[in-house]
Amino acid sequence: MKGKKVSETYTLKTELVMPDDSNNLGNLMGGKLLHWMDIVSAISAQRASNRTVVTVAVDFVEFKLPIPQGSIVILEARVSRTFTSSLEVRIDVSVEDLSTGNRKHSHVAYYTFVAVDQSGRPIPVTPVIPETEEEKQWFEEALRRRELRLLLAGRLDMDQAKNLQEYIYARSKKE
Amino acid sequence: MKGKKVSETYTLKTELVMPDDSNNLGNLMGGKLLHWMDIVSAISAQRASNRTVVTVAVDFVEFKLPIPQGSIVILEARVSRTFTSSLEVRIDVSVEDLSTGNRKHSHVAYYTFVAVDQSGRPIPVTPVIPETEEEKQWFEEALRRRELRLLLAGRLDMDQAKNLQEYIYARSKKE
Amino acid sequence: MKGKKVSETYTLKTELVMPDDSNNLGNLMGGKLLHWMDIVSAISAQRASNRTVVTVAVDFVEFKLPIPQGSIVILEARVSRTFTSSLEVRIDVSVEDLSTGNRKHSHVAYYTFVAVDQSGRPIPVTPVIPETEEEKQWFEEALRRRELRLLLAGRLDMDQAKNLQEYIYARSKKE
Amino acid sequence: MKGKKVSETYTLKTELVMPDDSNNLGNLMGGKLLHWMDIVSAISAQRASNRTVVTVAVDFVEFKLPIPQGSIVILEARVSRTFTSSLEVRIDVSVEDLSTGNRKHSHVAYYTFVAVDQSGRPIPVTPVIPETEEEKQWFEEALRRRELRLLLAGRLDMDQAKNLQEYIYARSKKE
Amino acid sequence: MKGKKVSETYTLKTELVMPDDSNNLGNLMGGKLLHWMDIVSAISAQRASNRTVVTVAVDFVEFKLPIPQGSIVILEARVSRTFTSSLEVRIDVSVEDLSTGNRKHSHVAYYTFVAVDQSGRPIPVTPVIPETEEEKQWFEEALRRRELRLLLAGRLDMDQAKNLQEYIYARSKKE
Amino acid sequence: MKGKKVSETYTLKTELVMPDDSNNLGNLMGGKLLHWMDIVSAISAQRASNRTVVTVAVDFVEFKLPIPQGSIVILEARVSRTFTSSLEVRIDVSVEDLSTGNRKHSHVAYYTFVAVDQSGRPIPVTPVIPETEEEKQWFEEALRRRELRLLLAGRLDMDQAKNLQEYIYARSKKE
Repeated sequence: MKGKKVSETYTLKTELVMPDDSNNLGNLMGGKLLHWMDIVSAISAQRASNRTVVTVAVDFVEFKLPIPQGSIVILEARVSRTFTSSLEVRIDVSVEDLSTGNRKHSHVAYYTFVAVDQSGRPIPVTPVIPETEEEKQWFEEALRRRELRLLLAGRLDMDQAKNLQEYIYARSKKE
Repeated sequence: MKGKKVSETYTLKTELVMPDDSNNLGNLMGGKLLHWMDIVSAISAQRASNRTVVTVAVDFVEFKLPIPQGSIVILEARVSRTFTSSLEVRIDVSVEDLSTGNRKHSHVAYYTFVAVDQSGRPIPVTPVIPETEEEKQWFEEALRRRELRLLLAGRLDMDQAKNLQEYIYARSKKE
Repeated sequence: MKGKKVSETYTLKTELVMPDDSNNLGNLMGGKLLHWMDIVSAISAQRASNRTVVTVAVDFVEFKLPIPQGSIVILEARVSRTFTSSLEVRIDVSVEDLSTGNRKHSHVAYYTFVAVDQSGRPIPVTPVIPETEEEKQWFEEALRRRELRLLLAGRLDMDQAKNLQEYIYARSKKE
Repeated sequence: MKGKKVSETYTLKTELVMPDDSNNLGNLMGGKLLHWMDIVSAISAQRASNRTVVTVAVDFVEFKLPIPQGSIVILEARVSRTFTSSLEVRIDVSVEDLSTGNRKHSHVAYYTFVAVDQSGRPIPVTPVIPETEEEKQWFEEALRRRELRLLLAGRLDMDQAKNLQEYIYARSKKE
Repeated sequence: MKGKKVSETYTLKTELVMPDDSNNLGNLMGGKLLHWMDIVSAISAQRASNRTVVTVAVDFVEFKLPIPQGSIVILEARVSRTFTSSLEVRIDVSVEDLSTGNRKHSHVAYYTFVAVDQSGRPIPVTPVIPETEEEKQWFEEALRRRELRLLLAGRLDMDQAKNLQEYIYARSKKE
Repeated sequence: MKGKKVSETYTLKTELVMPDDSNNLGNLMGGKLLHWMDIVSAISAQRASNRTVVTVAVDFVEFKLPIPQGSIVILEARVSRTFTSSLEVRIDVSVEDLSTGNRKHSHVAYYTFVAVDQSGRPIPVTPVIPETEEEKQWFEEALRRRELRLLLAGRLDMDQAKNLQEYIYARSKKE
């Protein structure tokens, strides 16, 4: 079974913040951004699996800065790792200032999808293959994020979360 | 400064899954649900602060089950804890089957908001006061969730996350 | 045949007036409010009947005050009475001021629905049972509103509208 | 002060029922139709007054038949009468079958608007002048509808509703 | 086979530019206007063919003037000519100033549709019959526009475009 | 005055055809595609000019194939040439089949924008510089398309359209 390369799942979506995307302060609504991230990452997951996919989880997302109306928002999605029939997608969001063209990395988000057949039942997916150093790192870290997700969902106990434990141990050490 | 009770921030939003809320499998789109949760929790945070609020973070959200078109979706939001100018809101989502009226608790989500003044600058909020056992538990756990958020956002080191450490230690012990 | 209590049909929908809900004066569009009332009352009618319902009539609705962008709008629906396969739903709309939290009752509306089967044909519904004094009053008055509806629709003559006549007679007397 | 003719306020809006206008039975949503009627009648009222207008009341509306997706919906609005700063607009809705071209008059609705100045305050409007027999009839009946509206809104007593009383008396007689 | 008159395909759609139709300068978005023109011309083509139609081409459209929020936009569509299973629709767009009622012809556009059967396959349409001088002119010119379309689509060579050549020749002469 | 390279204006927008983007045959609505093309090309023009831009013209667009719901639509925009304060943007649309990943070039479109200042007045833009052979060809052909646009808009006579004449002459010759 030959898998796809991470780069083959790359999906780019560029949006312009219009009045009907804005909240009462004239900035992009959080809910709208979450919706755009859902679309771009779903496309990425479909490209990896050649299947219809459904959103099953959204990791922690932090909106650091308000994004004013008129801004250009760049959403880049890549499948970071697959697990049987689920796919983790990494989304990098950047904001571009219209008058200077300066682009600022706004935040990273992780959405998880399950590939399904015609009747909506989970179906196995071919694995994606990381190539660059960065992609390999995302691939490695995906295990830890998965353990954290299962832990937060109450489906894994902390002492089973080997990867997460190691990471926490290593981080505590380092400091 | 007298704060509001958690129950005074309670906000209920009932929605009906219509064709234009649905994905290509005939189920509620993940992005739409994230948008509804954003609105209901923003209202709850505004009720607590009497201020305009902006979304700053969304915790891990798991969509356990597909929600078919025609379903009734119940979103209940309450401010679980405040921190200087930010407010954590807990959202309980349930799905009601039209033909039986059976209601199933679908999932819990946590959105964090910052209260802002007219020019969009953070402004302190009066604390909310938990009263029931459940509210007190949410209030206690909020510290741990906050540490996890700061940790995931790279703004806190693991050894500073006292509450989280204690919790992880306790959970490992138990098993 | 055991019916449901009015309180079991209670449906609450909370909305925040966003820029794309607003007219050119910065207030909530009348048409948008009519749409929200349609959704919340349809859910209430579905809860009473456990059936798909379709809107068949909207009674007189008066919009007393403009509702400015940023306001919180509270829509509360309850089935006031059922007739064979139709259900009358009462909707109470209130507006909450963000900065004070003051809630003002804005208006009352009545929507009528018909419960239908899979092919869209009307199907009988179990009656709803009023319990409080207020609910009993709504239940009583529903007959009069129904006569007025049939009269306005040209399907009932004035001399057949017994309840309405009595009411008009009584009101004229009183003054 | 020379007023406009009713025919000068005539406004036609043709719509095609698309998937995102439809309910879960594949028919036009009641709430969407109410929204379309709001737009077309607001335009008619603006044409009569050359002012921004706001919806203040919707009379009884009956949806006799389900309107299936793909149908052509024809909305025709005309100002039937003005009162100081308010305007009553009559809306005739018809549905056209795509495959036969047959057009069926679906229903009549009355929306009332108030003309406002820049700061949203009511401002007097020039009266509209009925010309045809039909327009004169709508103009006459407008008084009765206005009394009914004020009565339903609790701002008029039955014995002050002279026009309405006469009408009711006449109708009872006739039968 | 008796065809329909052009006047029988006349379709009028009146719209009010609302905040969510506007761009960041407070004017109607070009994309929204293209969408409205698509709807009104599709209805016109359906009226001519009594068939579901799909958009296959949009001719050159020029937006001469910004259309400010609050404007009334009038879209008038008529089938100008049919070709086997395709229909060319002419759309005249006018803008009406709210405060003066002055109407300015904004631009003309041509959309082409194909009539399809239930499975989406092209199906022949009965021809439309021009009656007025203006309609006859549109009918004649349609040949030229069709040649230009086929030329631009790379499906016709310039020397086959007889009508277009004649027109170009005539115009060059005249000057 | 140093201009930007065409490649710096490259803008990619990936979309997924959802139920509320679809017509009654289950395919992408033409009007929706025109709207997406408007957004992606506006962003490209803003990147070239660092200014707010407004749509002033859409060239001939041909929709060769229906795009079924669930398809991935790829929109790629690049500024092909600038003229004083206007910018011509080329948009390449491709459709990707979900189950095979096959991508088919669907069509090319040209949108023209004008860069404006804060009060909406046209403002000169720095020229874009073509680098590849393809970009140089688009740049050259832009003159011809501009002449065609001015001709179609009635603002240029055929004998002034030098580029267009040469092209037509050359094409007739060739055959």
